[in-house]
Amino acid sequence: MVDRSDVEAAAALIDGRVRQTPVLTLAGGELGVPGRLSLKLELFQHAGSFKPRGAFNRMLQSPLPEAGVLAASGGNHGLAVAYAARALGVPAEVFVPVTASPVKVERLASLGAQVRQVGQHYAEALAASTRRAEETGALVVHAYDQPEVVAGQGTVGRELERQLDGIDTVVVAVGGGGLVSGIATWFDGGVRVVAVEPEQIPTLHTALKVGRPVDVEVGGIATDSLGAQRIGGIAFDTARRTGVVSVLVRDEDLVRARRLLWSELRVAAELGGAAALAALIGRAYVPREGERVALIVCGGNTDPSDLAARPH
Amino acid sequence: MVDRSDVEAAAALIDGRVRQTPVLTLAGGELGVPGRLSLKLELFQHAGSFKPRGAFNRMLQSPLPEAGVLAASGGNHGLAVAYAARALGVPAEVFVPVTASPVKVERLASLGAQVRQVGQHYAEALAASTRRAEETGALVVHAYDQPEVVAGQGTVGRELERQLDGIDTVVVAVGGGGLVSGIATWFDGGVRVVAVEPEQIPTLHTALKVGRPVDVEVGGIATDSLGAQRIGGIAFDTARRTGVVSVLVRDEDLVRARRLLWSELRVAAELGGAAALAALIGRAYVPREGERVALIVCGGNTDPSDLAARPH
Repeated sequence: MVDRSDVEAAAALIDGRVRQTPVLTLAGGELGVPGRLSLKLELFQHAGSFKPRGAFNRMLQSPLPEAGVLAASGGNHGLAVAYAARALGVPAEVFVPVTASPVKVERLASLGAQVRQVGQHYAEALAASTRRAEETGALVVHAYDQPEVVAGQGTVGRELERQLDGIDTVVVAVGGGGLVSGIATWFDGGVRVVAVEPEQIPTLHTALKVGRPVDVEVGGIATDSLGAQRIGGIAFDTARRTGVVSVLVRDEDLVRARRLLWSELRVAAELGGAAALAALIGRAYVPREGERVALIVCGGNTDPSDLAARPH
Repeated sequence: MVDRSDVEAAAALIDGRVRQTPVLTLAGGELGVPGRLSLKLELFQHAGSFKPRGAFNRMLQSPLPEAGVLAASGGNHGLAVAYAARALGVPAEVFVPVTASPVKVERLASLGAQVRQVGQHYAEALAASTRRAEETGALVVHAYDQPEVVAGQGTVGRELERQLDGIDTVVVAVGGGGLVSGIATWFDGGVRVVAVEPEQIPTLHTALKVGRPVDVEVGGIATDSLGAQRIGGIAFDTARRTGVVSVLVRDEDLVRARRLLWSELRVAAELGGAAALAALIGRAYVPREGERVALIVCGGNTDPSDLAARPH
């Protein structure tokens, strides 16, 4: 189990390695949704997503073998591991599915990682990476289901609490559940945590329904950032223990939310990064009047071309 | 003359109408430049730039005639006036040069403004707008050379001072000088203010050299956001009185800075919005070791297509 003290320790360990990302607070009623919204702009983190928090926390707590580090990823975690490995001076080998976005694959290579493209989805890349780790002896940095990784992602919650008074609710996208469980660990039931998944990748939703993590079909448009096949064990336990609220969003609401972030705020997020807002505009989660809602805009590794020239 | 109390009054008057924009502080040495950088992300303001601050301050201090408001603009000021007019329920007529970016023209129309495209540069649009104002009786909201406008833009400085301790230097782009003079008014010599202009639009630079505002040739790639032909009288007086430091940047540094904001931070700024960073990466202004430098990223009304798929 991961607890608040692990998040506290992670924050101290990774201090100076990661950015404190800013918060943008909107007026009540902006973006056409109820509640008072604040956006935690975690897409401005190094490597374009929250993932370096967990990657650094894992890598700074373990002896780093000569073979370096190894990860499987839909893309963002791989970028974070490649970024952290470069910062710490060790090699990185990253397995991604062939569906990983070209933007992410190019960035991985430019960060100096060895990139291996295997399988249609994250789960296949993960299986290949596990076999490879046994050969090389590299340190495995899991995309979500390691205590150090969850504790590192939890620093998003700790930072947010210091930046924003009186939070009622935190809304956060879920892939494998590292970020949501880190945040839920930090708040420990003290604020409502709403976990958002695409209807076509309901890993946490299904697990909470059947009482244990199970494989789900992975489909839709956001597999690139949220395409884990099964919720992590730590995430499942934490979600159940702390009372995380699970909601599902339609792909069309992901697209609308991403477009709205650009047209109204000039924030260029990836689809996964827009998931929290999608839950509000699609009314999967409806805040009360005046409710203080923090949305984690968790990733920006996107090709912004299709945002061009759309008036608001 | 505009003074600190005008900025204070503006802040109270426009409170709730504009967003408090966030600040992102980087580690020392990030982006390959000396000093400790903080970015004031004013591109997340309503209508995509700092301009609504001045527009609201002007419009809330004057009786609004039935003919509404009228403005000439390279684009961003027009968007702000259109946004503010919609918020206050009056019509807006906006004159822009034919060189205004299609993104801005489309957004203007979508905000409900009457758009008139006249002339190659801002100065011609301004002349046409002045003639038109005499016909209609609409309230003219100048893009930079009105005390209420300068005081409104000065709220960027006031807000920044509350967000960031120990600022040594503020670096800010100059078109007609509304933003730089507002900020210089607020800090009143207490911090160094560095005014950045493209080499091919040196309105303030030339005025400081010859001792008065004069027309300059307008050229290069950033005319769309920084293309005033002559520095405003208020800006000139304020710059001289408070000791604003004037520097020039090359167009190629504007391009590099804009690209760097995207590749390292996922911030999609327009060229004018990247000018402050351009001064640092092009060494037009070189901070001391440890100097706390705030860069105003002042606009994001850009077509982000050309940022696509560039690895960092």
